[in-house]
Amino acid sequence: MTRTVVASATKETIIGFDQPFCVIGERINPTGRKVLNEELERDDFSRVEADAIAQVAAGATVLDINSGAVFSGKMAEDPRYADNNFVEPMLMPKLIEVVQNVTDCPLCIDSSVPGALENGLKAAKGRPLLNSVTGEEERLELVLPLVKKYDVPVVAISNDDTGISEDPDVRFAVAKKIVERAADYGIPAHDIVVDPLVMPIGAMATAGHQVFTLVRRLREELGVNTTCGASNISFGLPNRHGINNAFLPMAFAAGMTSAIMNPVALPVGPTKIAEKRAEVEAAGIVLPPDMDDETFVRLFGLGSTKPRPGKEMEAIRAANFLLNHDDGGGDWIKFNKPASASAANTNARAGGRRGGRAARARG
Amino acid sequence: MTRTVVASATKETIIGFDQPFCVIGERINPTGRKVLNEELERDDFSRVEADAIAQVAAGATVLDINSGAVFSGKMAEDPRYADNNFVEPMLMPKLIEVVQNVTDCPLCIDSSVPGALENGLKAAKGRPLLNSVTGEEERLELVLPLVKKYDVPVVAISNDDTGISEDPDVRFAVAKKIVERAADYGIPAHDIVVDPLVMPIGAMATAGHQVFTLVRRLREELGVNTTCGASNISFGLPNRHGINNAFLPMAFAAGMTSAIMNPVALPVGPTKIAEKRAEVEAAGIVLPPDMDDETFVRLFGLGSTKPRPGKEMEAIRAANFLLNHDDGGGDWIKFNKPASASAANTNARAGGRRGGRAARARG
Repeated sequence: MTRTVVASATKETIIGFDQPFCVIGERINPTGRKVLNEELERDDFSRVEADAIAQVAAGATVLDINSGAVFSGKMAEDPRYADNNFVEPMLMPKLIEVVQNVTDCPLCIDSSVPGALENGLKAAKGRPLLNSVTGEEERLELVLPLVKKYDVPVVAISNDDTGISEDPDVRFAVAKKIVERAADYGIPAHDIVVDPLVMPIGAMATAGHQVFTLVRRLREELGVNTTCGASNISFGLPNRHGINNAFLPMAFAAGMTSAIMNPVALPVGPTKIAEKRAEVEAAGIVLPPDMDDETFVRLFGLGSTKPRPGKEMEAIRAANFLLNHDDGGGDWIKFNKPASASAANTNARAGGRRGGRAARARG
Repeated sequence: MTRTVVASATKETIIGFDQPFCVIGERINPTGRKVLNEELERDDFSRVEADAIAQVAAGATVLDINSGAVFSGKMAEDPRYADNNFVEPMLMPKLIEVVQNVTDCPLCIDSSVPGALENGLKAAKGRPLLNSVTGEEERLELVLPLVKKYDVPVVAISNDDTGISEDPDVRFAVAKKIVERAADYGIPAHDIVVDPLVMPIGAMATAGHQVFTLVRRLREELGVNTTCGASNISFGLPNRHGINNAFLPMAFAAGMTSAIMNPVALPVGPTKIAEKRAEVEAAGIVLPPDMDDETFVRLFGLGSTKPRPGKEMEAIRAANFLLNHDDGGGDWIKFNKPASASAANTNARAGGRRGGRAARARG
């Protein structure tokens, strides 16, 4: 049985065919997050801490730490900051330290810069997952020795020096090459987590089929665990959550054992709240002057101003249950019925039923 | 390629491995619906008509017509009404006529009473699906001749004279026996839609695995289409929709080609509205005195007082897309973006982006 062990100093997450789906939280990633980049540039890690805590609360069992920041301010003063080989090896250990201080969740060290990977490996306690190696010759030669030296598992992405093939057989062959090359270094297949590369179904109609088929082959022929950037599948489409929510259980049923994804439903922001307040006012509704945003958002069915698990986490928990990785459904029941609400509901219903029976008996 | 053709006078639905998932709408069924029973007893078919229209609008491509009514009023006057062999053969043709008058959707004639099945076959135009035969000797001998005589496809449920086995291999063997017995009558396998029987995962942890494995075997070894009562899987559990929404795409990916299910999200009822109005009032919110229920329900995020497609239909449409049965995603895009809203959004976004670029160019 293939089992990939990822661990912090005190906690172990096992990725495996006999395990619940492993959710690798993707939020700690400055790519495209302007505010986060600016905060990191001035050593403000409060958002990183909050993202770590929210993702674990939502159900992430590994946290991805991506150091790909762009420090535009410092760049203007010092040209070395234009080079990620300069920025990321400094930033990665800081990020890891911050996250390790607020959670015992195992980590995934994510960078395209080898120096950042190695500094991350030095900073991380336990047995982090390394993200990533590809089939490119240069990457293989840089990353596999680190994997061997630090005895960690690694994400293997199925592209090589020719790029990303649209042919799934080529992507399978690239994965096979990485597994074989790793074996030359003495790295076992159970320490390789293959990302077969998910294409957007909006652009490629066979993208779903490709993933399901590839995952099955990777599992049966190479005996490896698999992962993917789950949200790629819905890129460019309306209602992306609707696609992702169906994709994850289907991929899991096909044999996928983890995904790099956002487990958190983003809180309702000030713009949405302002729009809704305007709509409510236009409809002639008068609110108490002191109604706070959280109460407003809850009463008008907008969700919450606090982060909570996304719908994808509901889909994954249901799939865990359906694939017999949630014995007796304990996790499902807990996820859907907070203890207090559950007790209140049960009482209310029981009371109602008793009343009903009494009424009928009298009639 | 296995293709089960179900047809009305003018419309064809094909159940098949190369087809979108076939949703067999289950709402026209008096079982456990007190109000509907009372209406049918006095020949009021308005709810049947509304259920037919709403289910087709939500995406059902076959409508199940179940005649299992209990006419308590008439029973008191005439003891023959206590016998379903008396009630259902009269009721079934009426139901079919009513439904055929409001929709061209192909039908599924659903009864445990052979006389109701035959009267339904006489009344239905086109090529209805017959629901159902089982592995019980008596049922085989009563139903298969009807299937042959009227040249229709039939749902085959995997129980026999010994009941429902918890062993999936036994249920497979029952399905195989039905397919073989049908062949003796000259009924081809592509006219048999096997229901492998879905157990509740709350009661049996392997229930999901069983279905996925059985469906794959039924498809690969017997070459038959499959169906199921989809909501059985979540019986007795909290947040049943959450389970169903994951189950349907997983079953579909395993090879299931149809399901008997409710495609409609039930409208918000008066009780829920009254509760919410009380909650809103208690929070000190003042509504305009003339606010109608539909506006209230929409503004407070409760859904709609009108029927609309359930979340399960979103899951199925996403799975159609992911399994390449929705070429270019046209159906997905249409389902998620009503034409008017779509145009408005696109314009708004385009305007915003142009503004952004202009602002940056000036800066």
